[in-house]
Order: sequence, then structure tokens, then C-alpha cells
Amino acid sequence: MAKLKDFVDSKAFQNTILVVIVINSIILGLQTSPLIMGSIGGVLDILDTICLGIFIVEMLLKMVAYKFLGYFRSAWNWFDFIIIITSVLSGLAVLSSVRILRVFRVFRSLKGLRGFKMISSLKPLQIIIGAIGKSIPGMSWTAFLLLIIYYIFSIIGVTQFGTAFPEWFGDIPKAMYTLFQVMTLESWSMGISRPVMEVFSYAWAYFVPFVLISSFVMMNVVVGIVVNAISEVAEFNKKEEHEENGTADIKAEIDAVREHLAKLEEMVAKQKS
Amino acid sequence: MAKLKDFVDSKAFQNTILVVIVINSIILGLQTSPLIMGSIGGVLDILDTICLGIFIVEMLLKMVAYKFLGYFRSAWNWFDFIIIITSVLSGLAVLSSVRILRVFRVFRSLKGLRGFKMISSLKPLQIIIGAIGKSIPGMSWTAFLLLIIYYIFSIIGVTQFGTAFPEWFGDIPKAMYTLFQVMTLESWSMGISRPVMEVFSYAWAYFVPFVLISSFVMMNVVVGIVVNAISEVAEFNKKEEHEENGTADIKAEIDAVREHLAKLEEMVAKQKS
Amino acid sequence: MAKLKDFVDSKAFQNTILVVIVINSIILGLQTSPLIMGSIGGVLDILDTICLGIFIVEMLLKMVAYKFLGYFRSAWNWFDFIIIITSVLSGLAVLSSVRILRVFRVFRSLKGLRGFKMISSLKPLQIIIGAIGKSIPGMSWTAFLLLIIYYIFSIIGVTQFGTAFPEWFGDIPKAMYTLFQVMTLESWSMGISRPVMEVFSYAWAYFVPFVLISSFVMMNVVVGIVVNAISEVAEFNKKEEHEENGTADIKAEIDAVREHLAKLEEMVAKQKS
Amino acid sequence: MAKLKDFVDSKAFQNTILVVIVINSIILGLQTSPLIMGSIGGVLDILDTICLGIFIVEMLLKMVAYKFLGYFRSAWNWFDFIIIITSVLSGLAVLSSVRILRVFRVFRSLKGLRGFKMISSLKPLQIIIGAIGKSIPGMSWTAFLLLIIYYIFSIIGVTQFGTAFPEWFGDIPKAMYTLFQVMTLESWSMGISRPVMEVFSYAWAYFVPFVLISSFVMMNVVVGIVVNAISEVAEFNKKEEHEENGTADIKAEIDAVREHLAKLEEMVAKQKS
Repeated sequence: MAKLKDFVDSKAFQNTILVVIVINSIILGLQTSPLIMGSIGGVLDILDTICLGIFIVEMLLKMVAYKFLGYFRSAWNWFDFIIIITSVLSGLAVLSSVRILRVFRVFRSLKGLRGFKMISSLKPLQIIIGAIGKSIPGMSWTAFLLLIIYYIFSIIGVTQFGTAFPEWFGDIPKAMYTLFQVMTLESWSMGISRPVMEVFSYAWAYFVPFVLISSFVMMNVVVGIVVNAISEVAEFNKKEEHEENGTADIKAEIDAVREHLAKLEEMVAKQKS
Repeated sequence: MAKLKDFVDSKAFQNTILVVIVINSIILGLQTSPLIMGSIGGVLDILDTICLGIFIVEMLLKMVAYKFLGYFRSAWNWFDFIIIITSVLSGLAVLSSVRILRVFRVFRSLKGLRGFKMISSLKPLQIIIGAIGKSIPGMSWTAFLLLIIYYIFSIIGVTQFGTAFPEWFGDIPKAMYTLFQVMTLESWSMGISRPVMEVFSYAWAYFVPFVLISSFVMMNVVVGIVVNAISEVAEFNKKEEHEENGTADIKAEIDAVREHLAKLEEMVAKQKS
Repeated sequence: MAKLKDFVDSKAFQNTILVVIVINSIILGLQTSPLIMGSIGGVLDILDTICLGIFIVEMLLKMVAYKFLGYFRSAWNWFDFIIIITSVLSGLAVLSSVRILRVFRVFRSLKGLRGFKMISSLKPLQIIIGAIGKSIPGMSWTAFLLLIIYYIFSIIGVTQFGTAFPEWFGDIPKAMYTLFQVMTLESWSMGISRPVMEVFSYAWAYFVPFVLISSFVMMNVVVGIVVNAISEVAEFNKKEEHEENGTADIKAEIDAVREHLAKLEEMVAKQKS
Repeated sequence: MAKLKDFVDSKAFQNTILVVIVINSIILGLQTSPLIMGSIGGVLDILDTICLGIFIVEMLLKMVAYKFLGYFRSAWNWFDFIIIITSVLSGLAVLSSVRILRVFRVFRSLKGLRGFKMISSLKPLQIIIGAIGKSIPGMSWTAFLLLIIYYIFSIIGVTQFGTAFPEWFGDIPKAMYTLFQVMTLESWSMGISRPVMEVFSYAWAYFVPFVLISSFVMMNVVVGIVVNAISEVAEFNKKEEHEENGTADIKAEIDAVREHLAKLEEMVAKQKS
């Protein structure tokens, strides 16, 4: 049992699985081409099934090695489990529309690459990713503010322009999609705002403030993340330099002064006696 | 009276009002759908009136608790007061076009959330918001500069292209809207500049500099805010570390040296006598 | 003579001129409207001439006060001189197309505002503007690099797509304008790249690298300015804190230690004798 | 031989070649104009051949000076070698389509400018470029992540929208190009997403997440580079200030204290005897 655990945790095993994932990803790509499917489609389908088989065997081996319950402690394993089960079920039920879910198996490559430990050598990258992770509470707050702004503007949009422009402001989800488009500045004026202004001449008072507000909020998110990341990196650099720094030298020098003093005291004390 | 003040300031009361605000926001959203209005429109209108009634009661209770004049010391209360009065008047006058103003009551949610104190735990976010707030004088200066640039370019635009392109450069407000669109880079070339260049071949000398100048000014705003925010956060971090830092340690060590010296002096003085 | 210099340098005189500039700017704006020109066009033209007269008097007074040659030492005075001379000449020759040059007189407002000294109170803003100014050598280098990239890509563009798309790639200036549009990402794909790809299927290998390269270069400019501005502000903060900082305290404490030592030495020396 | 090496490394020789490169670049530009080619096309072709001849002579001189193998140690020389060989071959074979490759000779100007040493005086620019260079490992990782996202989304796109929109999602390369366009936000909604949504109403669940994910990844790249560049510059400033700084002063003062102590010890020791 311990041997099996060593085996499934070994680099050789993980890299083999990674190779299978990469091959499977390529097969999934090739299967999108009608031309290739016409000539070697059968071979690709068989190879795809073999890959799926390998994944199932890998999953079962890991389940045995980690005593079933231990297997489900890792989020990655849950990810694998759901993808494999869905693939198997879609295969049995011949539901071609569920096939797409298999594509997400490609994300396993990212997990597999953790074995390569190539990222762990990039300290600053990890700090930046960590800083962005720490920014998420602040960002979720901004997302909430943005949602309220979207909600208010979409209600105004539906009430005002809904009847005249049902495609863009027909209901709240449609208005929200339109507002998202406006936020990305894509065709906001020539495509949306100018046609609306031809019917409602005051519409600029709806679109221009929305563009300004949403840009301002998005800018704040970017500024927030940049500032957070910088202060994280500065913190990290400070810790590193603390050892190799001037303050340490100064302390050492002051210690030398104290030693001198101790010697002096001793000498004076001796003289006294 | 003091009891009433405790009651309107209590968390339970504020959260109840928050729930009513959220429900009212959802109702305002549902009222935009003709389908939903067709089936349960009457119920929604009654619920909306009930919500408005609760807001009026809340306002009156607060007015009594804060002795009327005290109530108007808070900007949030002014905000509530205006929205409620407008809602009541629009209800009486059956002016459907004023109904939209009610939507802004959703912003009360933000105020309500202050009760949750969830933001106060996010120190860095507050510093960043504070830094952006401090950037406003600098930004207002940039806004003034941008306004002059807009004014100059819109006068040139109206004088030059006004007759040929009345929709884009017919008068100064239209030209300013067009320039705002150009600043956001939306369809500035294919939509505006190229058609204008077909009539006035030198028009690129108007649009390209405007794109460069406005992008440069906007970039300065972003750079300014980033730099301000970073230096604010750096200031904050410096204050925090001052206590836990090397300099404090060094001072302590120097104090120890001085103690030694005082002892030595004493010893030498004794010896003298 | 000295009295005249005091007069033209006085705040009252400068602010009066500023008011005239603002009034003149508004008149220039109003003159763009055919409706307003139809009713009070005559009045506006007279007011415009009066403003021009005031500017001429101001210029002559300054010239006398600064003894003519001293007047031309300031770049702002050159700016005024050229604008006024051009305005006078265009007025005499009744060349309506030169009238636009008068609009640039609005920029004098910026100079006038120097009298308000409102900017000098915004230390960080000045540092940021200074930092952006210092970034110009670096930016001019990037501008040169960008020019070479534009030149190479426009030669390739004209050679490859010039015959098929004369409007976009007919000659090098046209290709450069198109590339500028592509750099701003405006309709680069739907408007330019996809139509070109319909004729030359390999055109993506021209547009996609250009988008990537130009975005990368522009990003470098922004990063460079942000980094420069931050290090300038950090430098400025460091100088400020130097006086109020821990290092000064430490030095004071070490001085106290040295005083103690000097006292000790004296005591020991006395004892010796 | 050593003399020849001195000659090809001399500033005069390098600047002469730079002038030839600039002239050749201008000729390449002029050759794109049919009008200019019609009048002085023959002269330009001869000048172009002369420039090519000078480049060949320069290459041969350098080969002799650096003993052939030494020549190929520099990447710039490889660059020159390939461009010259290609130019000669295209000239012999009269392949007009390979002529474009000559344009890249313009890049030699950049190398030539290294002789001007104008960049080496811009310390901060070099640090920023260095910082961006150091960011490349982190960026290549992001590029890999982006590639996987592109791959997954293009497979989904081809499988879902391939049949209905063959121009945009016909195969994986086409889908990748479309996704690149969507990432640059160019006409992503009006041009691509809305037409697709008319057939597949759920298509927003494909485009909106892709816009959000790709924007987020790109933002991370920018944040990463900014943070890296700032910490590099901060590092550089720290090293510079180390010498001129307070810590150095403090060390000097402590040294003075130690000297005093040594003197004291000596005095006490003398007294003892």
C-alpha cells in the first residue's frame, strides 16, 4: 500500500500522466477538424478512449493509494473525478454536446506542471500572484459596487430605452450585457449611444457618465492591485535585506563598543582593588 | 427620547431597513419586465408602496430621535430625505418619468453596509480609497486642462468640419461628445476620422494629435493616482514598522552603552575620592 | 519706467487680462454658432476686436516695461506676440481660414493661472509632472524605436497590400496612418485586417505581430513613466523624512555617548596627574 | 591584421556604415512609390545595389579582421550575414517577393546606434529595460497559461459555432485569431458576439468570461512588469544611496566612539602600571 502511494506520487508516474494529458489535448484539437476526422477519425476516437482509460486507471490507483477518503481531500482530485465521470457518462449516453466538458481536462496540464517545479524558482512571480490573491477581498467589494452600478443603470436603461431598442435594453440581462459592452468601450458610441441618441436626444447623459464611472471603478481595481503587489514585494525585499543590511552591521559595531566598555570596566575594577 | 435614539441606531433596526432596501431594489428590477408586471404587477406595486411607507416611518423616527435639525447634519439623511420626498411627490402626481429617481434608493444599500463594518477590516483598501481621494485636487486640475483642450479642439472642429458633418461637429456640445468618443478610441478612425478625411484630406492633423494629447493626459491621471496611492501606502507601512524596526533596537543598544558608561564614570569617580 | 514694470507685473493687471482672455474664449465659442451669429453676431465681432485691442495694449505696455528685448526673453511672451500678430494680420486680410489660430489664445489662460499660484500648493502634482518631464529622453528613444517599427511595417504594407488596398496602404503616409489606427486597436481586425486577409490570407502574420509589438512598446512607455514618477516621489519623500527621522535621533544619541566619553577621559586624565 | 581589426572597430568606420544604412532605408522607402520609381527608379536601383555592395565589403572586411569564425560569435553579425545573403540571392534570382526581407536591414540602424552610446547615459531606461528582460520568464509562463486558455476556448468555439460561423470559428487557427481580436476588445460585441448570439443565445457565456479572463491575465502581465521594474529601480537606488547615506555616517560616528574608547583603555592601562 505504501509502495503504491510512492508509485503514484513518483515523478515518473506524474510525468507519464502529463504526457497522456498533452496527447489527449492534441487529439481533442484534431477532432474539431472535419477533414482529419474524415480520414483518421476512427483512430483518434480509439486513442481518445485509451486516454480516458488511462485516466480512469490513474484515478482508481490514486483512490486505492490514498484509501478513497484521502483522495477527495485534494481539490485537484475532485476536479479529475468530475471530469472523468462526466466523460464516461457522456460516452455511454452518446451525448455529443457534453463532449465539450472533456476539453477542461486540458487544465490538468497545469496541475501536472506543478511536478516540474518550474514555477517555484520564480520567487517574484509567486509574490505577485500572492498579492493578487490578497487583493481579491478588495476586488470583490469593487465587484459588488460595480454590480449595484450595473443594476441601477440597467433599470434606468430598460425603463427608458427598452421599448425603442428591445435588442439592447429589452430586459435587465440584455441591458447588463449592453452595459458590459459599453464598459469595454467596444462600439459604445457609434454602435449603441448614437443610434439611441437619435431617438432620445438626452441619452448621452446616460452613456457618458456610465463610461466615466465604470472606467473609474476599473482603474481603481488596477491601481489597487498594483499598489498591493508593490507593497507585498517591498515587504518581501525588506525581510530579505534585514539580514544583509546596514542595521545589522551597526548592531555588530555597537556590540564591539560594548565589549570594549566591559573590558574597560574590568580594568578599572582591577585597578580599584 | 434617548431610548428612541438607541433604537434607530441599533444594528437590528439598521439591518431591517437594509433588508427592506434590498427587497425594494429587487421589486424595482422586477417592475421593468412587462411579463411579470402583467401577472403580479398589482402585488409589486403594493409591495413598493409598503416599502416606501417603511422608509417614511424610518425617516420620521430618525427625525424625532435626532430632534429634526440633528437629522439634517448627515449627508446620507439628506440623500434619504430627497429620494423619499421625490418618490412621494411622483406617486401623488402620477408622473411615471420621475419613477426612475427611486432607483437611486438602491445606493442606500451602500450606506446600510457601513453597519456591517466589513470594509473597515480592509486597511489597504481604505488607504487606496483615501489616496484616490487625495488625488482629486490634482485630477481636477487635469480635468480643467482636458476641458481647455476639448474647448479648443471643439471650436476648431465646428469651424472646420461643422458644415460638412453637422451630426458630429454641428455645434460645440456635439463636437465635445464626438471628441469624448475619440478619446475613448471608439471608432475614432473608421467611424469618424476616415470619413472626414475623404472631404478634408488634412483632417488627420486634427484627429491624430487629439488622440495623442488626450491619451497622454489620461495616462498622466492614471500615473498620478498610482504614484499617490503607492506613496500613501508606503507612508502607512513606514509608520507601522517604526515601532517594530531596527532603529528602535539600535536606540536600545545605544542606551545600554550609555548605562555602561554611567557605571564606569561612577566607578572612576569613586576611585578618585 | 520701474512703476510701469510694477504695474504690468501686479496681480490686479494679470487677473484683468485673465478675465479678458476668458471672455474672449467664450466669444470665440459663441461665434461658432450660426444661430447666435445671426442675432448678435455684430456685437460679438466688436467685442472680439475690443479684446484683441486690449491684448495689443497689454503687449505694448509689457514691451515698454521690459525695454523691448527683455520682453522676448520669455517663451510665453513670444507665444502672445505670434498669436496677436497673426490675429491682426488675419483681421486685415479678412482671411477667415486663419481665424482658427486665434483659438490658441485660450492657452494663455493656462499662463494667466500661474498668477493664481494654485498649482504651487500641489507638491505631489509638481513632482509627477517633473518626473514625466524627466521621462522625455527615455520616451523620445521609444518614439524613435516606434518610428523605425512604423517605417519597416509601412514599407512592407505598401509593397504587399498597396495595389489591392490603395486607401489604406497606397503610400507610406497612408500606411503609417493605418498603422497608427491599428496601434490604437480601433477596428484593426473587423475594419482592416479581415478585409485584407480575404485577399492575402497570410495578412494575419503582418497585423498580429504589429499589434503585439506596438502594444508592448507602448506598455514599456507607461511602465517607464510610472517607475520614474515613483522613484522621483520616493526620492522627494526620503529628503523630507531625513530631518524628522530615526537616523537623526541615533546620531544625537551617539553624540551623547561621545560627550560621556570625553568627560570620562578628562576624569581619568585628572586622576593620572 | 590587427590594424584591419582596429579599422573595422573604429568609430569612423561604424558611423560611415550607419550613414549607408540610413540612406539605404530611405531608398527602400522611396522605392515603394510608383511615381518616384517612374522618374528616378533606375537611379534608386543602382544606389540600392551600391549600398548592398558596401554591406558585402563591410561583411568581408569584418570576416577577415575577426578570422571568419570570430565573426560568427556575434548575433548581430549573423543577422547581417543572413540579410546580405538573402538580398544577394533575391537579386540573382530576381524574386521580387523576397525583396521585403531587405527592409529588415533597417534594424541594423539600431545596432549602429550602439556606437553613439547615447543610451548608455540613460541609467533609469537601462534598468527598466533590464527589469522587463527579467520579467520574461514570468511572462513566458503567462503566455503559456494564455495559450492553454486560447486552446480550450478555440476548441469550444469550433465545436459550438464552427458550422454556423465558418469565417470566425471554422478551424482552430481561425478561432484563435478571432479570440485574439476579442482579447484586444476590437468589435468583440457588435462584430462577433451579438451576431453569434442571434443564432446561439447562450453565446454570451462564452464571450463574456473570455473577455474577463483574458483581460485579467493581461492585467497581471502589466502589474507584474510594473512591480518588477519598480523593485529593480528601488534596488538600484538603495545601492547608490548606501554610500552617501545616514548608515555610513552612523558607522563613522561609532568608529569615532571606538577610537575614544581605545584611547581611554590605553590611558587606564598606563595608569595601572
